[in-house]
Amino acid sequence: MTEASPEVEHHTTLALDIGGTWIRAATVTHDGQLLGARKQASPTTGSAAEILALCAQLADEARAASPVPPRGLGVSTTGPVNPQTGVLYDPPNTPAGFSGLPLGQYLRERLELAVVVDRDVNAAALAEQRFGAARGCTDFVYLTVSTGIGGAVIADGELLRGADGAAGELGHVVVAPGGPTCGCGRRGCLEAVAAGPAIGRAADRHARAHPGSGLAQLRDSLGGTPLRGHQVGAAALDGDPDAREILAAAGAAVVSSIVDIVNVFNPQRVVLGGSVAMAQPCWIEKANAAVRQSALQPASETARVVPTELGDNGGLLGAALLLDRPTEADHAARHRRR
Amino acid sequence: MTEASPEVEHHTTLALDIGGTWIRAATVTHDGQLLGARKQASPTTGSAAEILALCAQLADEARAASPVPPRGLGVSTTGPVNPQTGVLYDPPNTPAGFSGLPLGQYLRERLELAVVVDRDVNAAALAEQRFGAARGCTDFVYLTVSTGIGGAVIADGELLRGADGAAGELGHVVVAPGGPTCGCGRRGCLEAVAAGPAIGRAADRHARAHPGSGLAQLRDSLGGTPLRGHQVGAAALDGDPDAREILAAAGAAVVSSIVDIVNVFNPQRVVLGGSVAMAQPCWIEKANAAVRQSALQPASETARVVPTELGDNGGLLGAALLLDRPTEADHAARHRRR
Repeated sequence: MTEASPEVEHHTTLALDIGGTWIRAATVTHDGQLLGARKQASPTTGSAAEILALCAQLADEARAASPVPPRGLGVSTTGPVNPQTGVLYDPPNTPAGFSGLPLGQYLRERLELAVVVDRDVNAAALAEQRFGAARGCTDFVYLTVSTGIGGAVIADGELLRGADGAAGELGHVVVAPGGPTCGCGRRGCLEAVAAGPAIGRAADRHARAHPGSGLAQLRDSLGGTPLRGHQVGAAALDGDPDAREILAAAGAAVVSSIVDIVNVFNPQRVVLGGSVAMAQPCWIEKANAAVRQSALQPASETARVVPTELGDNGGLLGAALLLDRPTEADHAARHRRR
Repeated sequence: MTEASPEVEHHTTLALDIGGTWIRAATVTHDGQLLGARKQASPTTGSAAEILALCAQLADEARAASPVPPRGLGVSTTGPVNPQTGVLYDPPNTPAGFSGLPLGQYLRERLELAVVVDRDVNAAALAEQRFGAARGCTDFVYLTVSTGIGGAVIADGELLRGADGAAGELGHVVVAPGGPTCGCGRRGCLEAVAAGPAIGRAADRHARAHPGSGLAQLRDSLGGTPLRGHQVGAAALDGDPDAREILAAAGAAVVSSIVDIVNVFNPQRVVLGGSVAMAQPCWIEKANAAVRQSALQPASETARVVPTELGDNGGLLGAALLLDRPTEADHAARHRRR
């Protein structure tokens, strides 16, 4: 099956999206349809062997839905990965078993398919460029605000990779010096201020400091367990003023970071995705206003901030597109040779 | 003379470096020697016509030193510029007459030479890559801390340009929310905290708030004129504790920004230049320690922070190198066609 030709017009690609919360698989058609989609919770305490076996099983199940032999397997995965070897690095926010996971080699041997592995944000950016909110763009930034905050940059048509394929960590830029401690060890990173868990922790701090507040009552009603980002979002929708203020502060940090991004990358678009950002559609309008008013010319006039069009499917669709970019897999090799 | 072949091994290139403080010109040999170097103070109140005439005059004088007809003129200029048309945009920190200056066309006609125009930071980055602190690097960031703070990014061997050629404004990233107002209108940009004038203003604020302090005495001894960055630097060297603290705060902001840069770009090197940074060599060591300790793996292990090797000559040397990159001039055209 590794001989399936990429020239076949109606090819399919097997796709795997490995996140901290879900592992998903599907057969992706040439025009971006998902067939035989599967998902299962990521094993947060599993060993490397268990995680690898689960990935192979889901991919195998999704392969059964393909009308033709898939041309290969694209894998999008949480956290930085060496795109040449398909081995994961050890980032914050990644379950323990994921560190050093030899994804590429294992899946290649187990499934007997060509395999390309890349970061989920890179895959999602490629998907937005082909099928979504960045169609036709050569210069754009994809920013996801979810359990973590990550980014991918397409510059002059190419993914910005950096020396080790680890570029794009837009969530690990300090936006609040001396602020909350981040999973990466620094204080006040955008991720420590505006990702879902950071919003939950801010609400918790507020609840503990103000025992009579709505957030404190919410926390008590949940048995005193730490609040989570989506619960703060729900409280804000119900009109809780403290929840609204906490979300507004997170939004202001994201908006200011988007202005920074426009100054640094001069993109045509900033595509905003991730569960936290998707739940706060007003951030898009605020970011556009801030870019117009505060970014440098001419970047301020060029950039448009837009919501993801593909949402949760970006990682899977983009994983399939990794097979369109044969140079991605050997980027690191080319890089070292020069 | 426009027919001078770039294949000639021992060619020369005319180079012009237009800064907010100085306009400099020289003939640059193929191996990076400067011949017939000229410089004159930038006319801060001059009209566009005066600035253009001065540029042409200095270039003409420098051309006289060239042993062979130069193959063309490379121009590095302060602030963003459209590399296709050679027209300057209107950035902060640029003297009024520079806005909209049609540099490329004027100099092409006046000097009868092929002309390529680009931002000074882009030129300086190319020079460090060829002759200086980034020799052999495919992925690095050049950061200059001077009257302003600017950056240039080389990613996978190419300049990061963005949609309008305005990418790389690393000085206009907020590092101190609610901090001092920046020339760009935002508050707390790195430039508003750590550039030379920002250091001078911080010392001024301190002098006004603490009339008996050494900085207040220094200010009085200068007739009450606002302090300037290099005067604060001299006071720090003389042991003034307040001047040291102000410089340490600026240094901490630069160091933290360098960690951000490592996370975002995963570079092999960060080359630190500009008069303010060159006067504070301890920033290099502090930045390397912070990158090792605080940046994400694997970027933290790859990146080295190094001082500029070319200093003030980077802009001129890099201007000459712009002629080696024929694709730079029509980048925007290619970009728009895709």
